Amino acid sequence: MVGIGVIGYGYWGPNLVRNFYDVPGVQVHWVCDLRTERLARLRLRYPAVEITDDFNQILNDPRVDAVAIATPVSTHFKLAMQALRAGKSVFVEKPITATTQQAERLIEEADRRGLVVAVDHTFIHTGAVKKLRDIIQKDLGEIYYYDSVRVNLGLFQHDVSVMWDLAVHDLSIMDYVLGARPRAVSATGMAHVAGQPENIAYLNLHFDCKLMAHVHVNWLAPVKVRRTLIGGSNKMVVYDDLEPSEKIKVYDRGITLDPMAPKASERKKQMRIGYRAGDMFAPQLDVSEALGSELSEFVACVESGTQPTADGAAGLRVVRILEAATKSMASHGAVVELPKDLVPA
Amino acid sequence: MVGIGVIGYGYWGPNLVRNFYDVPGVQVHWVCDLRTERLARLRLRYPAVEITDDFNQILNDPRVDAVAIATPVSTHFKLAMQALRAGKSVFVEKPITATTQQAERLIEEADRRGLVVAVDHTFIHTGAVKKLRDIIQKDLGEIYYYDSVRVNLGLFQHDVSVMWDLAVHDLSIMDYVLGARPRAVSATGMAHVAGQPENIAYLNLHFDCKLMAHVHVNWLAPVKVRRTLIGGSNKMVVYDDLEPSEKIKVYDRGITLDPMAPKASERKKQMRIGYRAGDMFAPQLDVSEALGSELSEFVACVESGTQPTADGAAGLRVVRILEAATKSMASHGAVVELPKDLVPA
Amino acid sequence: MVGIGVIGYGYWGPNLVRNFYDVPGVQVHWVCDLRTERLARLRLRYPAVEITDDFNQILNDPRVDAVAIATPVSTHFKLAMQALRAGKSVFVEKPITATTQQAERLIEEADRRGLVVAVDHTFIHTGAVKKLRDIIQKDLGEIYYYDSVRVNLGLFQHDVSVMWDLAVHDLSIMDYVLGARPRAVSATGMAHVAGQPENIAYLNLHFDCKLMAHVHVNWLAPVKVRRTLIGGSNKMVVYDDLEPSEKIKVYDRGITLDPMAPKASERKKQMRIGYRAGDMFAPQLDVSEALGSELSEFVACVESGTQPTADGAAGLRVVRILEAATKSMASHGAVVELPKDLVPA
Amino acid sequence: MVGIGVIGYGYWGPNLVRNFYDVPGVQVHWVCDLRTERLARLRLRYPAVEITDDFNQILNDPRVDAVAIATPVSTHFKLAMQALRAGKSVFVEKPITATTQQAERLIEEADRRGLVVAVDHTFIHTGAVKKLRDIIQKDLGEIYYYDSVRVNLGLFQHDVSVMWDLAVHDLSIMDYVLGARPRAVSATGMAHVAGQPENIAYLNLHFDCKLMAHVHVNWLAPVKVRRTLIGGSNKMVVYDDLEPSEKIKVYDRGITLDPMAPKASERKKQMRIGYRAGDMFAPQLDVSEALGSELSEFVACVESGTQPTADGAAGLRVVRILEAATKSMASHGAVVELPKDLVPA
Repeated sequence: MVGIGVIGYGYWGPNLVRNFYDVPGVQVHWVCDLRTERLARLRLRYPAVEITDDFNQILNDPRVDAVAIATPVSTHFKLAMQALRAGKSVFVEKPITATTQQAERLIEEADRRGLVVAVDHTFIHTGAVKKLRDIIQKDLGEIYYYDSVRVNLGLFQHDVSVMWDLAVHDLSIMDYVLGARPRAVSATGMAHVAGQPENIAYLNLHFDCKLMAHVHVNWLAPVKVRRTLIGGSNKMVVYDDLEPSEKIKVYDRGITLDPMAPKASERKKQMRIGYRAGDMFAPQLDVSEALGSELSEFVACVESGTQPTADGAAGLRVVRILEAATKSMASHGAVVELPKDLVPA
Repeated sequence: MVGIGVIGYGYWGPNLVRNFYDVPGVQVHWVCDLRTERLARLRLRYPAVEITDDFNQILNDPRVDAVAIATPVSTHFKLAMQALRAGKSVFVEKPITATTQQAERLIEEADRRGLVVAVDHTFIHTGAVKKLRDIIQKDLGEIYYYDSVRVNLGLFQHDVSVMWDLAVHDLSIMDYVLGARPRAVSATGMAHVAGQPENIAYLNLHFDCKLMAHVHVNWLAPVKVRRTLIGGSNKMVVYDDLEPSEKIKVYDRGITLDPMAPKASERKKQMRIGYRAGDMFAPQLDVSEALGSELSEFVACVESGTQPTADGAAGLRVVRILEAATKSMASHGAVVELPKDLVPA
Repeated sequence: MVGIGVIGYGYWGPNLVRNFYDVPGVQVHWVCDLRTERLARLRLRYPAVEITDDFNQILNDPRVDAVAIATPVSTHFKLAMQALRAGKSVFVEKPITATTQQAERLIEEADRRGLVVAVDHTFIHTGAVKKLRDIIQKDLGEIYYYDSVRVNLGLFQHDVSVMWDLAVHDLSIMDYVLGARPRAVSATGMAHVAGQPENIAYLNLHFDCKLMAHVHVNWLAPVKVRRTLIGGSNKMVVYDDLEPSEKIKVYDRGITLDPMAPKASERKKQMRIGYRAGDMFAPQLDVSEALGSELSEFVACVESGTQPTADGAAGLRVVRILEAATKSMASHGAVVELPKDLVPA
Repeated sequence: MVGIGVIGYGYWGPNLVRNFYDVPGVQVHWVCDLRTERLARLRLRYPAVEITDDFNQILNDPRVDAVAIATPVSTHFKLAMQALRAGKSVFVEKPITATTQQAERLIEEADRRGLVVAVDHTFIHTGAVKKLRDIIQKDLGEIYYYDSVRVNLGLFQHDVSVMWDLAVHDLSIMDYVLGARPRAVSATGMAHVAGQPENIAYLNLHFDCKLMAHVHVNWLAPVKVRRTLIGGSNKMVVYDDLEPSEKIKVYDRGITLDPMAPKASERKKQMRIGYRAGDMFAPQLDVSEALGSELSEFVACVESGTQPTADGAAGLRVVRILEAATKSMASHGAVVELPKDLVPA
């Protein structure tokens, strides 16, 4: 039996509790929140769960093996570090921390203590993204570009920009599905509401290969869009997360290069570019809830001491890019180099 | 009667001939092309039109008042300048020239001779873009962003990048619908086929106001997308050119700012951001063919000596941005300032 | 405080319990089901609710004012009648009963005892259908047709045909939004699986006016469709329940009739039919959960003794059509007259 | 060289002339129309074509081998019969004639004279419908249903109902892609404009097998829909003619039948119905213009004396159904038996 405490019962906390309830061998002992009206609501639904507004009560409970932290980003580090020091493994909402340094310290602490640090990169546990990874690795050939649009009329966050709120999803997906790691990043954005963080942003990820990645995030769009285009030398993919069932479409399309006819090549010495437009294929996807399988994996890691798919290092890689992109945005899109990744992929 | 010569009978030339035929008071006297098989095809359909592979024949014909130039971009300047010097007004395919200097010289030459220089910014003559301009000017309030995606599996051009081929449309539309002119531009792109120009590019236009504009163009996309999102302080627009009839949708959506409740404001000193989600409205659009009304306007200008909507100065403004964006792309996205526009808007 | 018992905890029962929990002034005392594994699941989530497999325990509990019945259709009548006789008001899943006679007896019994009979016509409590009713009554003019397609790869029901499972929704919506009542019905359908009820069906509703209604339901469709087209003399509507936000679109389109020019009319003596293609408008819709407001209304009716929007008479009208359509289907689409509706609308 | 005369230069005639021009070995000698302004327009574009308002001039011209008839339906028989009697093969707009008797007489006359009668069932020459036929014959298994929706805000025809105008397309496609022939038909419809033919209609085709076919046609719909759903025992198809490139989607979906577990089967003696939801596949389609390949085939048949895919018999089969459906519509949807088809399929 793995004992769990959930910290934060706002937007995401109820989903954590509900899904932990369905993982066999798990017991949710505690939920902590500072807002008593939130806890009252919880009590009605889950009377067996103890509630508190004092995080230390959870840390002091020896039945608790791990805590799940679903609080504002600025508090992730402090809470997770306290938990690790109390000997608890941690499952932290994305982004894992507000700075790379914080993420590095969490990884180090967990490593020293033999505890698990997991980051909630939910999307990589969806059937769609798992299939996307397979297709990218097997069918697409050399990857040319990865282009994501993730926009909607969204809840403004007061403490983080749209980049830390939305682009974090794209960065965690890319971290999982692309073999390559970006070398540098540049970003532009704007805050249209005085005193608020940026509500629109464009990120460019630069790689040491032919790959180019771009992300558009926007809290002020009239319509919701969740569409990623991925082009490879062999095939191309559209991943549209709003499609009810055909979220992944694989197109057998691309270009072909043929030497031009002799006469023409004498004049231009160039290749003729042809087009290949073949069939489209939409694989059936696993539709089980991502958060459920993610929490099952986390619990298994806590029991066995192994590392989850989205471990602290994955969280760190994503925060590195967000931090560099924030720096680039402040300097009008200047290219900011990323540190060579020392954590083995 | 206005006499016309058409130069270039490749992809666009036949559309010019067909549409000039339908403008009252116009006679197409000549079509010039170097490819005899093209001219043979023309002869079958329009036996009354004289054909030639010698441009000078047209320039020497006193019945010809104006020439329409639909040849590769690199030849626009030379052909248009010759025509102006022969006393003919010119209608030039987009982009008007390959450099800003060339465009400036054409404008100057036409000005001196009292001739018309028009650039074929076809989209600004569509019902959709005319309506878009109205809505932006009347309903949207302060414009926050203009975001366009124009991608497809497209014909690679050997002589120009995807930016000069596709983004030119977005730049001409913005030049027409937005009151503001960009102050600077930055762009990134990549050529995935060795020896070919860039086939994917992202442009950022920077303005002296809260407006941010972004364009994504791509010749290697698996699907065709032609979608522009425009956000304003009052309303927002989606302009999707692939929608059969509802190309323009106006959303009564946005954010509202309210002072927070006293207690909260003591703690945070901030405004509460609310959301407004109201009705959507798709105006009925004029569906007449854009090229037809564009050529009618050009012919009327030739007759009266007035300036067309897309005059040489409009063509110049677009080429300036393309030239600066090309420079930015070569320096990995560095911000390139645009010259202050001396031509009155 | 209104005390509730829920009968049946299969597909819909959990939604009833969850929504009753959110209605102020309601207490769910009991849930009854014959499947103990179902009840075990309930106990985990709602430990305060008593569970039983004996319906009589609920009927004998004086704290229970009303029961909600979410069991197979064939059991609705017996259970509802027992409940009424025990002095409990009833909220019954759609369709209200398996026969018109059963529905009539329930209405009569409830009437005699001053109890409430409500039928769960959930859709009429959605923001979309409420708006649809407004638009039909105010804007459309004379209604010409109502055409609904409701198909998907669906769960086969063993006891009822696709008509009783899916068309019941369309009939309940029509009952609510159209002023007119059908005069007769005809239907065709087919059972493709031996020993199973019909999995595809087409219904025609005949009215005493220019209105024509048609419903296509199908459990074996490759894609999910929920689209209704409604044409009126002034405007037309598309109601697409799968659209995330623009479920209702109102089109200012139609035909115009002009007397033809004298010369033509001499020859043909007819009107010229013209077309009107105007703006489209998608109203913002109330997005609160339909079942919640439906149950609130039911509880208020139980307290005050008033009738709900979907009362027993509404349930009876829908079953009458289903019964007649079943008869028509058995006779290859013969037109079956409906009884004149004696219950005032 | 095959000589052609085109009769009728209204909506479709110009398409015939343009496409005949592109068939090698064909010369369009004549175009006939009673409206001189139509012919004036033709003369401008095709000065080599002779124009006339006297059909007999064409019949008397020995250079003319075949005539294409694109006039109102009511005139098809008379014109086609005259042409056959003058020794010309005929290509007739759909529907081939206004009555089955007329179609039979044309077939008989052509047969006696060794001439070709073709009907313009354009859709069966599209890449989409050709692929649909392949898929139906190879992949779908037993066909369960064929359901087509073909609606739009359309041009009212004064002389024929929406069924003869639009459903004729569906009937010609079914005639081509389905192996089976209908046994009977029933139809309902309504004329909402006084003095005009029916503008909305629903057809049911009855077969001697598990197949059920249904067609909804409507001239008064707010949006354009061209969607056909086809379900088979192995796979299912969506054919959406408005999709720009993925017109045909094949779904590996359906039901599975498993004997129920012993205990359950004792109680219910029934099969458990399961669902199969697999991949979707959209084949690349031939995008050449259907009318071009159709006219090429017709010309080849005229030269060789062979029969086209859509011969007089195909035209007759479609008119038989239209005639029976019209009869059914007049008797409120009564089932009308079709004659056993004596022409071998």
